[in-house]
Order: sequence, then structure tokens, then C-alpha cells
Amino acid sequence: MQLAKRISDLGTETAFAVAAEAKAHAAKGHKVYPFHLGDMNIPTPENIVQATFKAVRDGKTGYCPNHGVAELRELLAEDINRSHGTHYRMENVCIQPGGKPVIGKFLLALMNPGDEVLYPSPGYPIYESLIEFFGGKAVPYSWSEGADRFELDPRRLADAVTQRTRLLVLNDMHNPTGADCSEGELADIAELARKHNLFVLCDEAYFAIRYAGKSLSLASFPGMEERCVILYTFSKKYAMTGWRLGAAIGPKPLIEVIAKLSLNDESCSNHFIQYGAIEALTNGDESARQIVRTLRERRDKAVELLRSIDGVKCFEPRTTFYLFPNVTEAMSKLGVEDYEAFRRRVLERTGVSFCTRTHFCRPLPGESEKYIRLAYSGVNVEDIEKGLAELKKFLG
Amino acid sequence: MQLAKRISDLGTETAFAVAAEAKAHAAKGHKVYPFHLGDMNIPTPENIVQATFKAVRDGKTGYCPNHGVAELRELLAEDINRSHGTHYRMENVCIQPGGKPVIGKFLLALMNPGDEVLYPSPGYPIYESLIEFFGGKAVPYSWSEGADRFELDPRRLADAVTQRTRLLVLNDMHNPTGADCSEGELADIAELARKHNLFVLCDEAYFAIRYAGKSLSLASFPGMEERCVILYTFSKKYAMTGWRLGAAIGPKPLIEVIAKLSLNDESCSNHFIQYGAIEALTNGDESARQIVRTLRERRDKAVELLRSIDGVKCFEPRTTFYLFPNVTEAMSKLGVEDYEAFRRRVLERTGVSFCTRTHFCRPLPGESEKYIRLAYSGVNVEDIEKGLAELKKFLG
Repeated sequence: MQLAKRISDLGTETAFAVAAEAKAHAAKGHKVYPFHLGDMNIPTPENIVQATFKAVRDGKTGYCPNHGVAELRELLAEDINRSHGTHYRMENVCIQPGGKPVIGKFLLALMNPGDEVLYPSPGYPIYESLIEFFGGKAVPYSWSEGADRFELDPRRLADAVTQRTRLLVLNDMHNPTGADCSEGELADIAELARKHNLFVLCDEAYFAIRYAGKSLSLASFPGMEERCVILYTFSKKYAMTGWRLGAAIGPKPLIEVIAKLSLNDESCSNHFIQYGAIEALTNGDESARQIVRTLRERRDKAVELLRSIDGVKCFEPRTTFYLFPNVTEAMSKLGVEDYEAFRRRVLERTGVSFCTRTHFCRPLPGESEKYIRLAYSGVNVEDIEKGLAELKKFLG
Repeated sequence: MQLAKRISDLGTETAFAVAAEAKAHAAKGHKVYPFHLGDMNIPTPENIVQATFKAVRDGKTGYCPNHGVAELRELLAEDINRSHGTHYRMENVCIQPGGKPVIGKFLLALMNPGDEVLYPSPGYPIYESLIEFFGGKAVPYSWSEGADRFELDPRRLADAVTQRTRLLVLNDMHNPTGADCSEGELADIAELARKHNLFVLCDEAYFAIRYAGKSLSLASFPGMEERCVILYTFSKKYAMTGWRLGAAIGPKPLIEVIAKLSLNDESCSNHFIQYGAIEALTNGDESARQIVRTLRERRDKAVELLRSIDGVKCFEPRTTFYLFPNVTEAMSKLGVEDYEAFRRRVLERTGVSFCTRTHFCRPLPGESEKYIRLAYSGVNVEDIEKGLAELKKFLG
């Protein structure tokens, strides 16, 4: 069988291989602490479930428009306008089967082969994968360790811009570092985008997962509404990861193209779940706050315990449900240089399963510090305590 | 805003424009008979609904593997093996958010730019759209009116093959004509595929919607299992169109690539609905038969009434829920040459809304007969009687 040539440029999420190893370890009878995947072990709020069931009963089991249910698009536009100070209307919203499908559709709509696209590394691996799969040139930018947080330096971002740069992928409230930009940094990035006529994919998957400060969007800055596409998802805010519902929000002509891509790809998103989403936007605020409270408790415990481990440095992120501790010293003490060897050894000896920097796009030249990523969205406080105590014992 | 160049090659389903016109007509207070869209007004069987609700209660609300839930993949492989005499296993199945997403993924996996792909015209418009969008050359083949059915002549298909032909899209049990191939015709097509090393997308969306005879699959013929990808969907068999669940079934290396594309595009399909699908495959046979009985009653009534209209010729298809009557004389009597003018005039005068041949890919050179497509999946017998009586009055 001869596959299409483009398939050799398609990447993947290597985190799934980690999940398989963790499963195999558990199958041998070992306790596993699943810090490797950003899934949630928090139930979807009951009112969302009920509204979804009611929609099935009401016969919302046939196709809906490829843009999504009108009422949901309208409510989502209003919801975003409240948090972002934007001026979106229903026409600016196209419902998607998850937030992730927005990445590919954004690239297909705007990127020509050979165009350069700035993307974060470390970062969600699908940006790098799909930029290259659809024939673009993936140009990485990075974060650096500041005093108390990971910092995205807009000047270094500016240095990466060339004549061929067309697009920027920004995942502020960032997976895997948990970093968020300051208002000043965002203003600088907005100026950069305007100056170089860049279109921006604002991956705001974690916009609502915040423990301090206020989430800001690049789309809120002057002139940016017309050059940003927001990747929105119900997955994290409402603990609906496996439901697969999200949206693309942006300038109408671009949303029309994304809707046309949806029509060609999946026809439409699931119909009745959109009524669950309507309920989420209408009566879901308290549930969403409760989810953040649950996650905050986990973050606090995990950061406290990681900081108590000799050779591990860990910031306390104000957002996302990820930690990205620096383990350079811990690895060095253990005499392990290789990320995968370290990860496997920790899993075998402690049951603590995590991803490392290598699961988040190709490392950049000159990287010397070593990082691992722990997701605490799928681990209860009790298991965070037990698991990180094991880790401390092993590394300590 | 400068869109990517490829966007100019992206087609659409113009049937949605017809739906919008029908809606506008209804909004003016007119009765509309919605024969234009292949959606279903039949409720999803209760046991499937219950199993889905139970899965939500059981916490199947997080991600599932990108290939889909293992139990469902296994059951689906067994189910296909029973009807197809094939030898699929779980590894040959990748669950998708509908049957439609298989089209694009099949093309991305196997088609290089410039490759020729044989596809049906008239046919589901997404084949033509996505072949061209991803840089292939779309080469149409067609059906002709036989004595009592539309016939796909394998010799004419063979004539369309060139050195550059790599893929064939076969939608036996065909939208829009309702045609199905004989065993001999399928054997000839299988031979053609083997001889020219063609890979085949077998769009079997209507495999279970059959009123006479037995559905056959190209994948069942010798040597074809390894060069076919079956597009499977739960949509029609179990009245689950808006649920969005289907699958790609084919050779393992190809299914691996399709699963990798899924991981990049949508992560996974909805988790809990897959438990509804497990129930459908386990205990859904009688419900599926009842759905076919309902559709058969509609077909019989619609064919009977269409045949009673002067200037309209209509076959009685053994499969699908579409009719593709020849209206050449009726249009000529009315003095209307243009398809859209005819369609609009009928809608305005009778409320009967349908698509025409022009909604199913670009017409071929030399086409002279005129056809319209009526879908009866969304119209009750009572409305079929009323609507087609109006049509008869107008055309008669």
C-alpha cells in the first residue's frame, strides 16, 4: 500500500504512548498516579446532563445546521463578548466537535504551502503536526523561566518574524507550562500581529481555568477582533472533554470558510449536546466555579509537594491544570540524562506517570534545562498526596 | 483577509441552500413538503437512547481512545464480518464522528496531488469537493437508465481509468439514484480495481436500507478486503443522523493512518454515544427492521404517486431512501428548461421541496435527460400523499 506523501509529515500526540505504558503498568497490579493526560475525573454538571437528555427526548436527534444551533451560537457570542469586551454576533460563531478541530480548519483556511507559522514549543503537539502536514513551515517560539513564572518575551517572538510569516498560534494560558501573559505582553503581541499583518489562532481552551488574576484575550486588543480566531471549548470549563463540543469564533468571512470545511468534513456537530451547552452557558456559572475550586485545591497540594522535593523547582501557575516543574537537578542526581529513561524509571518505581518536555513538540537548539509535565485534572487530592510522596521518596 | 488558495477549490452541498429556501417559504405560512434533505423524522430506538444515558451516568464523559471504544470496534468488526463475509478484527476499525469524515481522511491518506480519482456523478457532492480541495483530479463516472433501474456499466468505468488513476469512490446503494449493482457488476468492478491497483472508498451509508434483494459489498470480493475502506455509519440504519457516529473499516495500516488523522483533527469521537452504538449492534436488529418497514411504506406510496403523474418516470429502487425520477417531459410541458427555475416554481406552487440533478456534482457533457431527487426519509406517508397530489395537480 502506498500512502500519500503528506502522511510522512503528520505528527501525533506521543502522550498517548505514555498512557498505554501507564495502563500496562497498572495491569500488572501496580498503583498508577495518572498525571500524564489532560483528561478530567470530575463529573459533568447535572443540569447540563439533564438538558442534553431532554433534547434527545425532544427529538433533537436529526442533523442541525453545519454552523451549529442558532441559539447556542448567539449565546456563545454574548458570553465571549462579556468576558472579552468584543462585538461578536451569531455570524461569528461556528460550532465544532471539540476545540481541537479549529486548529486544522484555521490552517486550511489561511495557510498556503510554504507560509511560516509561529507556534509555541514547548506546546500542544498538534500545532506543529498540522502546520507541517498541510505544507506550512513551523517556526517555534518559546518561554523562559522568570522569577516566579514562565515568561513569553514578545521581543523574541518578534525576532522570529520573517517576510514569509503569515500566522501566529498563541496558546496563552499555556499547555504545558501553565503560563499566562501579562496585559503588556499581550499588547506587544497584538502590535506585532497588526504590524506584520498576521492572523492569530487564539487557543483559549483554558481561559476559564484560572486561580488568580483575570484571563485576557488577544482578541480584545484594538484591531485584533478582525485578525483572531478563538478556539473555544466546553471541555475544560464544564468537565465535558469526552462530549466533544467547541467552537471557532472570529471574523465572519473566515467563519464562513470554517463552516464550509465543517460541512465537508463532519456535516455538523452532535445536535442534542448543543442543548446541554446552551444550559451550560445559561446556568453553568456556579458549576464552572466549583470545578475551578476543585482544581485549585489539587494545584495547591501538588505545587506544595513538588516544591518539597530536592532537585525539583516548580512555579505556581495562575491558570490551566498543568505543572511544568524543572527537574534538571533531580535527573542529574539520579544520573539519568534521557527523558524517556527518567520517565519510565519513575513510573516503574513510584507509579507516578507524567509526560516530559519531549511530548510537547521538538526541543529547540540549546535547551539545557529539563522539564516534566504533570496534569492534575484527573487525579484526586488524596492520590496527589500519595503519588507525590512516592516521588519524593524516590528522588529525595 | 487573504484566504488560502486551496479554499477556491472547496465545494459544498448546495442542498442546504434548498433547505433555506424551503424554510423561508414555510415562514410565509405555506405548507412545505421537505423532500430535499436526507434527514430522518424517525425517532432513535429507545434502547439506544437508554444505553447512551446510562453511559453518561456511568461516567463515560471523559476522552476515549482516538480509535474508539475497544468493545464497539470489536462488535462492529464482527457485525461487518457477518454481513460481508470478511475477516476484520478490532484493529481494522476506527470510530469516527459520522460516516462523512471517512471521505476526507481516505483521500488525505492515499491521494497525492494530481492523482486521478473516479467518483460518481450524479453523486454525493462531497466526493467531488474534497478530491479537488486536496489537490486530486476528480474524474466522474455515471449511471444510465436501464429497463427497470439505473445501471452502472463497469465497461464505461474501465474506460475512465488512466495511468494516473489511483482511487475509486463507489457508493453502491447510491445517493441520489437509489441504484445498486448486481453481483456480476460488482465482480467486474473488483477485477478492475485489482488490475489497476486501485484503492476503493466503499461508501456503504445505505447498506442496511434495503427493500428487496441482498446488500453486497465490494469488500467481499476476492482480494478486495485489502484495498477497500468501508465508510460505515449508524446514522441511517438506526435513525441516528444527528448523533454523528460512524467508522472507517479497512486494512490495518490504513486504519492506523486514519486514526492518526482523527487524533490530529477531533481527538476522538463522543465517548458515551459509543455505548449507545454498542447497544444498537447488540440489540438493535428489530428496531432497524422497523425503520426499513417505515421507509418501505413511504417508498411504495411515493413511487406509486410519482408514476401516476404525466411526464414523470420513476424507478422503484430496492435500496436507499431516495427517488430520482426523470422529469424531462414534465419540464418540457411546463416550458421550463432551467432546473432551478423548475424547482422554485414547484416549491412556490405546491410546497413540494426537492433537489435536482445539479445538486449532485457537475453535470457531464451531453446529459440531456432531466432528473430531480426526492428523499422520503423525512416525510410521513400522509404528507407524501398530500404533497405528491399537489405536484400531480400542478404538473398534470
